[in-house]
Amino acid sequence: MSLFFTVVQVPEAVKAVRDLAVPAGEEPVPLAGSLGRILARDILSDADIPGFARSVVDGYAVRASDTAGSGDAAPAILSFRGRVEMGKAAGRPLAAGECIYVPTGGVLPAGADAAVMIENTEMTGEDVLVKKPVAHGENVVLAGEDFREGEIVLRKGRRISAQDTGVLAAAGCTVVPVSKRPKIAILSTGNELVPAGEVPGQGQVRDVNSYVVASFVEGQGCIPVRYGIVRDDRGALRTALGKAAAECDAVLVSGGSSKDERDMVAAVVAEHGEILIHGIAIAPGKPTIIGRFAEKPVIGLPGHPAAAFVVLVAIGSHLITGMTGESGRSVRTTAAALAENVPSTRGREDYIRVAVHDGIATPLFGKSGLLNTLVRSTGIVRIPAESEGLETGTRVEVILW
Amino acid sequence: MSLFFTVVQVPEAVKAVRDLAVPAGEEPVPLAGSLGRILARDILSDADIPGFARSVVDGYAVRASDTAGSGDAAPAILSFRGRVEMGKAAGRPLAAGECIYVPTGGVLPAGADAAVMIENTEMTGEDVLVKKPVAHGENVVLAGEDFREGEIVLRKGRRISAQDTGVLAAAGCTVVPVSKRPKIAILSTGNELVPAGEVPGQGQVRDVNSYVVASFVEGQGCIPVRYGIVRDDRGALRTALGKAAAECDAVLVSGGSSKDERDMVAAVVAEHGEILIHGIAIAPGKPTIIGRFAEKPVIGLPGHPAAAFVVLVAIGSHLITGMTGESGRSVRTTAAALAENVPSTRGREDYIRVAVHDGIATPLFGKSGLLNTLVRSTGIVRIPAESEGLETGTRVEVILW
Repeated sequence: MSLFFTVVQVPEAVKAVRDLAVPAGEEPVPLAGSLGRILARDILSDADIPGFARSVVDGYAVRASDTAGSGDAAPAILSFRGRVEMGKAAGRPLAAGECIYVPTGGVLPAGADAAVMIENTEMTGEDVLVKKPVAHGENVVLAGEDFREGEIVLRKGRRISAQDTGVLAAAGCTVVPVSKRPKIAILSTGNELVPAGEVPGQGQVRDVNSYVVASFVEGQGCIPVRYGIVRDDRGALRTALGKAAAECDAVLVSGGSSKDERDMVAAVVAEHGEILIHGIAIAPGKPTIIGRFAEKPVIGLPGHPAAAFVVLVAIGSHLITGMTGESGRSVRTTAAALAENVPSTRGREDYIRVAVHDGIATPLFGKSGLLNTLVRSTGIVRIPAESEGLETGTRVEVILW
Repeated sequence: MSLFFTVVQVPEAVKAVRDLAVPAGEEPVPLAGSLGRILARDILSDADIPGFARSVVDGYAVRASDTAGSGDAAPAILSFRGRVEMGKAAGRPLAAGECIYVPTGGVLPAGADAAVMIENTEMTGEDVLVKKPVAHGENVVLAGEDFREGEIVLRKGRRISAQDTGVLAAAGCTVVPVSKRPKIAILSTGNELVPAGEVPGQGQVRDVNSYVVASFVEGQGCIPVRYGIVRDDRGALRTALGKAAAECDAVLVSGGSSKDERDMVAAVVAEHGEILIHGIAIAPGKPTIIGRFAEKPVIGLPGHPAAAFVVLVAIGSHLITGMTGESGRSVRTTAAALAENVPSTRGREDYIRVAVHDGIATPLFGKSGLLNTLVRSTGIVRIPAESEGLETGTRVEVILW
């Protein structure tokens, strides 16, 4: 009997891989090399940001009450008491009726509570005419208004973006605690496969999955380790899986496309490891295996690249975020409206390829076995298990390749 | 007189940077290291894909006409003529009334024009009963149906995605011609700046822009080269710009936040290079400089990180794609509906920060000078120059940080 007939729903498969995932641990990296890494801890500011009250305009530090009622016809007249230099302390405090020039970003002197834009003033001798009133706090940022000392600026599990590196710099976090990049072993099985650098003979095809799977996990913040093509031979597969599991944190083996080949992967994992799930209610991707080999998580992916990709997005990404600790979605998405009705089978998650142009997602039906649909499509749309299909115009989330 | 009052529209600024951009040239990289790089040439398939007609199911290769009218009650009876092995040629051709077992991906024998799924058959002795008819071409992919030899599989200017690496593998492109990564020099000016690793004193702030700008260009496929903080001193700035321009392909200098500092950058570029544009009708980001220094493109960015980021997205990205040859948008976006009315000034592109949750984009008004808006927001929404604002519910494209 085939091992094939205990198909589980996608959420159960997701739970299985999350249970298998072992956190990858953390390592310090320099801030300049942290883009795209996953924060391993909450990051606190080491000081008030900003560390002092500052002007956000080029103008004059004032007491707001001194400018009340001022206008072009009846300006407030304030005594000019010098300038604040960029990067320096403010010097003397400000008394009632006085003003001090402050550049954008300069320290607001003690006693001042607002800044008047220079465009709204006029210098006459030793006095400054203020022609527009300012409110208390106007055009200034207070000490700690951005972040307080000890406040969390970024949370554990966040994937560090460009602007995040700026916030980390402001918080004084120049060495960033991030999750280690998990090492993911990648194997392809199939007697029909030849390396991409060879010319395929009759009956042979080039190994596409090694590249698709490796690139996917690389994009998810992992280190792909490629073990090449394993022939359909139980001994060879057992040896290759053993080496991969010993050297890496998880193993992704894309099965041959025929049932015999798929069954071989299942048999070897079952004999020398443990199969937890064999068959998922997902299309494409049903003949997926989830298990363990030498204590490491193993996912047996379908042989077709598009199906393998769907399983990576729907299931594999949860194994990876379980290891990296990334919170939220790790895949890129865009919103679009469906151009056509899409039928679906209740009880199974269906993933359809779509091409998105100007916010319209056109399903690419036709032969799903063709690689060119990977290039012509923008990504995939998930149709939930409880749905019998989506109607034209439905707004969908497209998971980008 | 300030150099400030020849404000140009965004399209003119974009044209200026595109005119300044010099293509970065190309280099070969191994396919396994090509993810995210920009294709420097069209890639052609070196062979028909697939190289032979193949079955896409586990089942029997047949002549479709032999199965016409078959059903459970009246199956077609075909003579079993052996099996095709994965990865091998098909052996003998198929005659009328015959069938040959073919696994998924196996070669379709000459004479066959369709495949019957094994689920729709039954073996009885030397015969196979076919219980469901198939049409000509059903369940098979023809030689070259995916890509023809010499056909373009991926076009120049494409940023290589995970699935693209698979298509490149299938096309035999194991060494990929990609654009060189441009080297982008990054400088920060401002007497108030201290390196992120230091504790700021009164009036001082940490250098945030070096990180934000470097991370942005890194995400765009460039190599950021950081030249640190330059004091507000014309000689020092001239020396630093000269070194940066000599060593890199373009220079991004983020100006101090005060007008004096901004004017210094403009003055040095004007004296020792050429200023093409000074002031852009964009908010935030108006005090932007576009010019040339030692024949290299220079963009003088605003001092505030959020403003610098807007200018990078709206203007700087075009300089980079001009160098890398990337076609299409290089920034990531998502669609959302505005949660509130957003006013805008006609004649100026306004960029507002928004937080996106469940497809709803909520504008973050309030003090734009705060860094925490960078973390609380998901990205920015562009309001075109010809608009006076957007109404609640308007569908907008959010440019993700």
